[in-house]
Amino acid sequence: MRLATLIGPDLKQLLRDDPDQVRELLDELHAEDVADIISELDPDEAAEFLSRIPAEDAAPIFERLEDHEQESIVELMPSESVVQIASEMASDDRADFFSVLPEAVGDKLLEELERVDPEAAEDVREIEKWPDTSAGHLMSRGYVFIAPEVSVAAAIGAVRIHAEDRSEPIYNVYALDEKDTLVGIASLRDLLLADPSTKLSTILRTNVISVPPEMDQEEVARRMAKYDLNVMPVIDEHGRILGVITIDDIIDVLTAEQTEDAQKIGGVEPLDVPYFQTSFLSFIRKRGVWLVVLFLEEFFTQTALRHYDPVFRAIEGASYYVPLLISTGGNSGSQSSTLVIRGMAVGEIKPKDWWRILFREAGMGLVLGVFLGAIGFARVLMYQDQHLPFAFTIALTLVGIVMCGCTVGSMLPLILRRCGVDPATSSTPFIASLVDVLGIVIFVHVAKLIMAAVLAHPAVLPHCE
Amino acid sequence: MRLATLIGPDLKQLLRDDPDQVRELLDELHAEDVADIISELDPDEAAEFLSRIPAEDAAPIFERLEDHEQESIVELMPSESVVQIASEMASDDRADFFSVLPEAVGDKLLEELERVDPEAAEDVREIEKWPDTSAGHLMSRGYVFIAPEVSVAAAIGAVRIHAEDRSEPIYNVYALDEKDTLVGIASLRDLLLADPSTKLSTILRTNVISVPPEMDQEEVARRMAKYDLNVMPVIDEHGRILGVITIDDIIDVLTAEQTEDAQKIGGVEPLDVPYFQTSFLSFIRKRGVWLVVLFLEEFFTQTALRHYDPVFRAIEGASYYVPLLISTGGNSGSQSSTLVIRGMAVGEIKPKDWWRILFREAGMGLVLGVFLGAIGFARVLMYQDQHLPFAFTIALTLVGIVMCGCTVGSMLPLILRRCGVDPATSSTPFIASLVDVLGIVIFVHVAKLIMAAVLAHPAVLPHCE
Repeated sequence: MRLATLIGPDLKQLLRDDPDQVRELLDELHAEDVADIISELDPDEAAEFLSRIPAEDAAPIFERLEDHEQESIVELMPSESVVQIASEMASDDRADFFSVLPEAVGDKLLEELERVDPEAAEDVREIEKWPDTSAGHLMSRGYVFIAPEVSVAAAIGAVRIHAEDRSEPIYNVYALDEKDTLVGIASLRDLLLADPSTKLSTILRTNVISVPPEMDQEEVARRMAKYDLNVMPVIDEHGRILGVITIDDIIDVLTAEQTEDAQKIGGVEPLDVPYFQTSFLSFIRKRGVWLVVLFLEEFFTQTALRHYDPVFRAIEGASYYVPLLISTGGNSGSQSSTLVIRGMAVGEIKPKDWWRILFREAGMGLVLGVFLGAIGFARVLMYQDQHLPFAFTIALTLVGIVMCGCTVGSMLPLILRRCGVDPATSSTPFIASLVDVLGIVIFVHVAKLIMAAVLAHPAVLPHCE
Repeated sequence: MRLATLIGPDLKQLLRDDPDQVRELLDELHAEDVADIISELDPDEAAEFLSRIPAEDAAPIFERLEDHEQESIVELMPSESVVQIASEMASDDRADFFSVLPEAVGDKLLEELERVDPEAAEDVREIEKWPDTSAGHLMSRGYVFIAPEVSVAAAIGAVRIHAEDRSEPIYNVYALDEKDTLVGIASLRDLLLADPSTKLSTILRTNVISVPPEMDQEEVARRMAKYDLNVMPVIDEHGRILGVITIDDIIDVLTAEQTEDAQKIGGVEPLDVPYFQTSFLSFIRKRGVWLVVLFLEEFFTQTALRHYDPVFRAIEGASYYVPLLISTGGNSGSQSSTLVIRGMAVGEIKPKDWWRILFREAGMGLVLGVFLGAIGFARVLMYQDQHLPFAFTIALTLVGIVMCGCTVGSMLPLILRRCGVDPATSSTPFIASLVDVLGIVIFVHVAKLIMAAVLAHPAVLPHCE
């Protein structure tokens, strides 16, 4: 029987009847798949399972569980088991785990860990002292360091000793001088290819791409992606290595940052936790804030419409067109802001390019506006009670509104970035609301202009009073 | 002098005066940084530079250039240089390069490559035969394979030979039986840690996570991220290995897919190329299509307003509130659709969860709607000419509209996924336009209901005719 084919109830039965058989099945499976099955169990069953198997088997499973799963399972486990598992975890996952726990629980566990595995506890403290979204918080402390004067054979020996003791993946050895300053790196491939008797210093690569511990994780991710690195050292201001960042964490960062951006653009405060783990109240808060802001912003449309009431009374049917016109402005604005926000996120667009973008977007707004204006013109004339001047009003308004949408939508994210605000804050609904008010103003002024011209020759506008 | 400190004009001068010095500076720098400098040069200078330096130095620089840069530089280089560089490139980057070239140019170069390096040409053909966004197209053909019966020392020897010949990174050796079927893998770390005289078969890991060549790159990316893999083999239906996919390509895939999603959600057809490389015409086409669709969709608001004209005439000032009300529906719909689309993209939300989502979103719509309704109610009463029944109308309409926005916004992406359409197609503007029309209908019907109640007691509504 393969564990992967077991579903929750079967596994529960097997755990009850023959826990040893479960343990044997573990070898066949990737820890990730076991973690998937554990997630399906009740927390007390998961706790029982993880306490029963050896800590070195439990650690890679446990570190793959979601934060909230870890938290609820740990509550139900004896603290000795938790400390044993924590001691076997990769140092970055271990620090993540401690940062998930309520402070009182975490502190108590960390004290116990201190007694069992002082080095592991030290790693947690070293990582936790850096801000949540910084390079320092992302790093693993499990890296192989060695003096540059030793032989390649000795470096391979150091890798062996390290690998027996720690579970982190190993890609490189880091050569440090007597002041712990990083002087160069050699990959496992370099070690394998070199003659074992050569000095390590002769095969070291010295142009090492690194990051300082304070750097924001998004920039760390961008740098690792740019240089196609699987692992990158974190170096303090004295050139000393503090830890290494591995690519699997970077993928999580990229995904989380993109989720955050998507949610901001959609007009939601970022959630931090998955959809189904987000509480109803937290949703109400995170969505409510923006809905209220946008609602208050939209009040200006009502104020504007009320203010321009005489114009709408003068032109029969004009108010029918308001939602159509202003939402078209919002749509073109959404397009522009999406393009610019995403372009900045991937580094294609820099704030200094603003004038090129303004020029392009205004041009695009003109062309798209003329195009939509032509459709709008034709549509108005399809109604028999509408006449040429009003059709012109609609067409010209569309040109103005789409140009306005494109320029506002493209410039606002750049301005926000300039002010140090995340450009994704200029959410699609925010820009739409802004352009809505401007759209009404444009519509009314175009209408007045054309009306004035028409009133000089009233014969061409029979339906306007 | 360090090359990184040189800016375009200096480098041009140095290239002219002393090309050998430039070559020496190359050793100091990461190929990525050199590629950045090359991007700043004119294509003819870049072509000259890349032709002058040895092909094994030029290849890692050339493969890091953008597609359009590669294309314009190659046109200006002698074809022998191009073929030499292509021969030295990593096999996946080489295949990418050929797929960028116009077909006639590519075919001719491939023929020349065939003569110089038949294996490299074969790799290009093998990769190019798979669809653009499939695992097969993403794979590299540079992997180390070996028989499982050999010793660890022999496996290390195979890695050495491979590394001298090919530039791809090496993480694992792949043990193949006599039928070329993959029987297991060993990492460089496994090789380093094992006794050189042991049989490779005794240290092989056999539960290998792999993908078929047809699998879509987005799913490939999800699988590699889930299992924290740096490299994953591509296996055909007979269990034979075709190539390996490395994590750096997966990061590019993730970024590209997220850009595509962001653009779709923003109501733009995905661009394929960076903002500034997209031609004006192509922008007009990719944005114009959606703007016209949305514009036509918004015509229904005009039709609805015209249809319900008597109601708006009966309630003084009601039409002022239309943009405010319907855009609030659009905003809540944007929020819900963003949450669901992103949740599906990261795998947190599955289509089978639809009823849980419907239940949650309807509840959220109710609470948020009551909240906004209360604000709207207060706002209406702030105007002296508005009275209680109308304030109730606005409040009740907001409840209905926000509930409608939340349910439509959350269900539409799930329905699209069910129909095999990318959920991101239900863009924010699309949902907003849909909800706009529904919003008008809700407003009018709520107004009619309350009006009917009021007209039974006309004394409470002095301002309605």
